[in-house]
Amino acid sequence: MEQEFASRLLEDAVTEMSRLPGIGRKTALRLALHILRQEPQMAHSLGNALMKLRDGVVYCRKCHNISESEICGICADPRRDSSTVCVVENVKDVMSFENTGSYHGLYHVLGGVISPMDGVGPEKLEISSLIDRIGKEDIKEVILALSATMEGDTTNFYIYRRLAETGVKITQIARGVSVGNEIEFTDEVTLGRSLLNRTLFSDQFQS
Amino acid sequence: MEQEFASRLLEDAVTEMSRLPGIGRKTALRLALHILRQEPQMAHSLGNALMKLRDGVVYCRKCHNISESEICGICADPRRDSSTVCVVENVKDVMSFENTGSYHGLYHVLGGVISPMDGVGPEKLEISSLIDRIGKEDIKEVILALSATMEGDTTNFYIYRRLAETGVKITQIARGVSVGNEIEFTDEVTLGRSLLNRTLFSDQFQS
Repeated sequence: MEQEFASRLLEDAVTEMSRLPGIGRKTALRLALHILRQEPQMAHSLGNALMKLRDGVVYCRKCHNISESEICGICADPRRDSSTVCVVENVKDVMSFENTGSYHGLYHVLGGVISPMDGVGPEKLEISSLIDRIGKEDIKEVILALSATMEGDTTNFYIYRRLAETGVKITQIARGVSVGNEIEFTDEVTLGRSLLNRTLFSDQFQS
Repeated sequence: MEQEFASRLLEDAVTEMSRLPGIGRKTALRLALHILRQEPQMAHSLGNALMKLRDGVVYCRKCHNISESEICGICADPRRDSSTVCVVENVKDVMSFENTGSYHGLYHVLGGVISPMDGVGPEKLEISSLIDRIGKEDIKEVILALSATMEGDTTNFYIYRRLAETGVKITQIARGVSVGNEIEFTDEVTLGRSLLNRTLFSDQFQS
């Protein structure tokens, strides 16, 4: 049901907001009426932040992570280990790995995973630019850190095949029981994998 | 957990968006990354619509509905029955009644209901301005259309008492079984009310 609005400005704001994913016209109306009850400053801060975000953010020429300059802060940081590149699906994954505080190498953002069902082939992802980096930079290890899904596995295997001839070391992040999860609620495939990839108990005390 | 962002602009956009009700930092980040993937035009339309909304929308001097001029479109419309005023809680309720297409009188937006628990007394609502309207305008009937809650009932009764001496006719929207609802799932209070306020069966064929 299309609602009739008392104001063209309200109508416009609701239409624009409902273009965002997960925000329907009903939610958009609720947000718009909230904005109307706040100080004008709030609407201006919000509106300007969104425009500046889109205008100011670019993608790093090397790793394709979001950046405010041609080369992102991570790629430009001399303290990072430039011999290791962690291949991730998207910008959010970079944030997740950064938040662990335990990775000090560089990244390479693919922009997705191979998914024939969604029409995403390897040519739509930043895979060729990854191969280029192996040739140009002094990279010794590529860590594949994609989702443990069929699409992630397919993409891992595709990259593995493409990189095989370069002789670079290719690793994959560990798959096993999530920290905090009970064995009872962990699926058999993960359990099987966790047995196969078991580690020396004493290893955990060394780092 | 506070996330570290790769970009100050992203950080700002997420912070501003997460000030909106029901939008946490996680949702805000998802929305921001979506905006980054769209054309710049989209961010500008959205940002501008929000600023124009807050700057352009005012409240009608008579009924306190949102408006783009001193007197709103409904109050200014000569085809509307200016002898009837429907008292509602908020701007959204005006839209709901307008969408029924069956009301042709004016409105009066209270801006809430009396709720001592939330610190809302009668003086915080547009009740005095309603009394003023009765004196100044040629109003014959005031329809109370507040929520069927304790707060709504309290507010109805308060307004009823304040308007008693003006001699204006005071009515209340019908309470009964919601259209489409089954008797089995209707509460006893509503059922009791629906019996008490039963209408002539033949009346429904007359309008």
